[in-house]
Amino acid sequence: MASETSPANLPPGYMVRAAGEGKLGGVARPRVMTGGGNSAKQQPWPPRRPEKGAIVQPSSERLGFVRNPLLRHSAERDQDLERHAAHPDAVTVAIAGDIPILRKNGSAVTGLLPLADLERAGARHEQAFLGTAAERPVFGTLLEPAAADLFKSGAEHLAIDLRSIAVQGLLPPDELGIVAEAKALLFWHSRHRFCANCGAPTVLSCAGFRRDCAACKTQHFPRTDPVAIMLVHRGERCLLARQARFIANSYSCLAGFIEPGETIEDAVRRETFEETGIRVGAVRYMASQPWPFPSSLMIGCIGEALTEEITLDRDELEDGRWFAKDEVRRMLAREHPEGLITPPPMAIANFLMRSWAEA
Amino acid sequence: MASETSPANLPPGYMVRAAGEGKLGGVARPRVMTGGGNSAKQQPWPPRRPEKGAIVQPSSERLGFVRNPLLRHSAERDQDLERHAAHPDAVTVAIAGDIPILRKNGSAVTGLLPLADLERAGARHEQAFLGTAAERPVFGTLLEPAAADLFKSGAEHLAIDLRSIAVQGLLPPDELGIVAEAKALLFWHSRHRFCANCGAPTVLSCAGFRRDCAACKTQHFPRTDPVAIMLVHRGERCLLARQARFIANSYSCLAGFIEPGETIEDAVRRETFEETGIRVGAVRYMASQPWPFPSSLMIGCIGEALTEEITLDRDELEDGRWFAKDEVRRMLAREHPEGLITPPPMAIANFLMRSWAEA
Repeated sequence: MASETSPANLPPGYMVRAAGEGKLGGVARPRVMTGGGNSAKQQPWPPRRPEKGAIVQPSSERLGFVRNPLLRHSAERDQDLERHAAHPDAVTVAIAGDIPILRKNGSAVTGLLPLADLERAGARHEQAFLGTAAERPVFGTLLEPAAADLFKSGAEHLAIDLRSIAVQGLLPPDELGIVAEAKALLFWHSRHRFCANCGAPTVLSCAGFRRDCAACKTQHFPRTDPVAIMLVHRGERCLLARQARFIANSYSCLAGFIEPGETIEDAVRRETFEETGIRVGAVRYMASQPWPFPSSLMIGCIGEALTEEITLDRDELEDGRWFAKDEVRRMLAREHPEGLITPPPMAIANFLMRSWAEA
Repeated sequence: MASETSPANLPPGYMVRAAGEGKLGGVARPRVMTGGGNSAKQQPWPPRRPEKGAIVQPSSERLGFVRNPLLRHSAERDQDLERHAAHPDAVTVAIAGDIPILRKNGSAVTGLLPLADLERAGARHEQAFLGTAAERPVFGTLLEPAAADLFKSGAEHLAIDLRSIAVQGLLPPDELGIVAEAKALLFWHSRHRFCANCGAPTVLSCAGFRRDCAACKTQHFPRTDPVAIMLVHRGERCLLARQARFIANSYSCLAGFIEPGETIEDAVRRETFEETGIRVGAVRYMASQPWPFPSSLMIGCIGEALTEEITLDRDELEDGRWFAKDEVRRMLAREHPEGLITPPPMAIANFLMRSWAEA
């Protein structure tokens, strides 16, 4: 079986050959900037006056999964559950195995299904109360993988892997964030039905945000794995790499899971050194992105290289080299003469590259 | 039994009544700034020329647990283990339950024990290879809680909870980071001896950085829980609060676990709103800190409040209010007329308060 959380270093946008996850790349969403949200609201600290010629960090609003309008009601999740479920406008995200079920809505598509749609779903597993959006209760429901086919056979629904949904821009950004949350949470349930402390079965509690062991009384909380992802640069060049399983011609940022006892900054330095032999000094945080494959939090940074000679870890990387700014700009614009490309705009690697190349 | 990871919102430095964890506060380490390390190396992006009168962010070097000099060898952990263990200068961090064992070294103290010291320890549980420091292999060894008394009875060792070690500055900063890593990793082993996917027993693998299930083949990786901790301000005032279990007179930053599907920035906004009713706009990342109680990564931010009227969540907070800059400065200096205090300098809450109050 697949590992629970792979230790391989996976730049987002590139788990392209994972089963059931669809193909990435090539489909760039329109470059529309919108207000609010993720790092669009960030300001330097202490506040600085704008300088002449200062370059504004590009918006991270286009990243997939970063917008989530739910009021989570995290302190009172167990309260009023029945009332929420009985609400006439209550909806649910439905995940069949790890495939979201979408509902056609005229020419548009929604990931928020009426609860009645679950009647055709077959066996239901865990259901979580995710919160309210515009006072409408939103649930997440885990279904059997086979339920995807049940829905696909009807005219009203689609069953599409979440990466494809994000890359193709099938859902409004607010809904995409909710579906991402549901996928991460329900995956956690699907893989944590037993107590890691004593081996006994556990049961869902706290409206889906906890599992409890009746035998040893341990409470288990959903897992979120912090990952450092970094654009490492030295002057006018930056360090990009590719794994053998990436789609052809694509290069991305280095990335890796943050380990116990590590700061974000040290994880950036360690991963870069281990994979390329490059030493990194200053590290600057840029933006974060939930990455529900299965349950990561991508923490995007820009790091300043202190050395230039690359020694690739060939177990991890097929290639890695320095790229000039202009070359990265062409890759981002899909105008590179040799056809080299970057991850799509929904991935934080793309955002980090733009932040650096367009500065 | 205690929860695996508590959902309570725990500003660091304040789990003062947890069993076996010693008391915090009152003992400030000398305010020595040193080079290198955590956010001391951070630079704004895009690079800005220094402005006249610009205030430099204080060093986050004094934070506990942020310095860790180990080469982790994460790609080849299983290799050469026997050779590392046979190295004449090999050392180990020893954790009895959750209490680190220290060795007296003249007037100094070290957390890195010769492997031979384990002979008096009684039953050993998991042992992990943490990496090398100055080419010396460093292990982490989990012992029975009762082993603390075995060591304490000798003249050569001490057994002291990690918070007290950090607050009192008993260990060099580099060693403190290594001991923190060992504590987090070994706690994870102690609470994850069974497969969450199928309930079967798991065994240590990958030199202590993985557990494997022979029954269903799931690989389990150490868990690190990202926590957002935030100094929320509005103009010249900032929002601080206290929980009933804090030590008397102490106020700290708000904090809470980042949930599935959340960005760091949204977790700052959600937690602040849920606990105080205050809306937060711009969020700026400041520094990160491993917090091994039991396995958190504190992600420190400064947030700009958009509203002023506080509605306290009385289930979580005993008090919360706006503090003027000058008042916070006096609290930091332990010169507040009413004796109000802050968490100690080893905690990131203290760093966030200083960053704001001294700007």
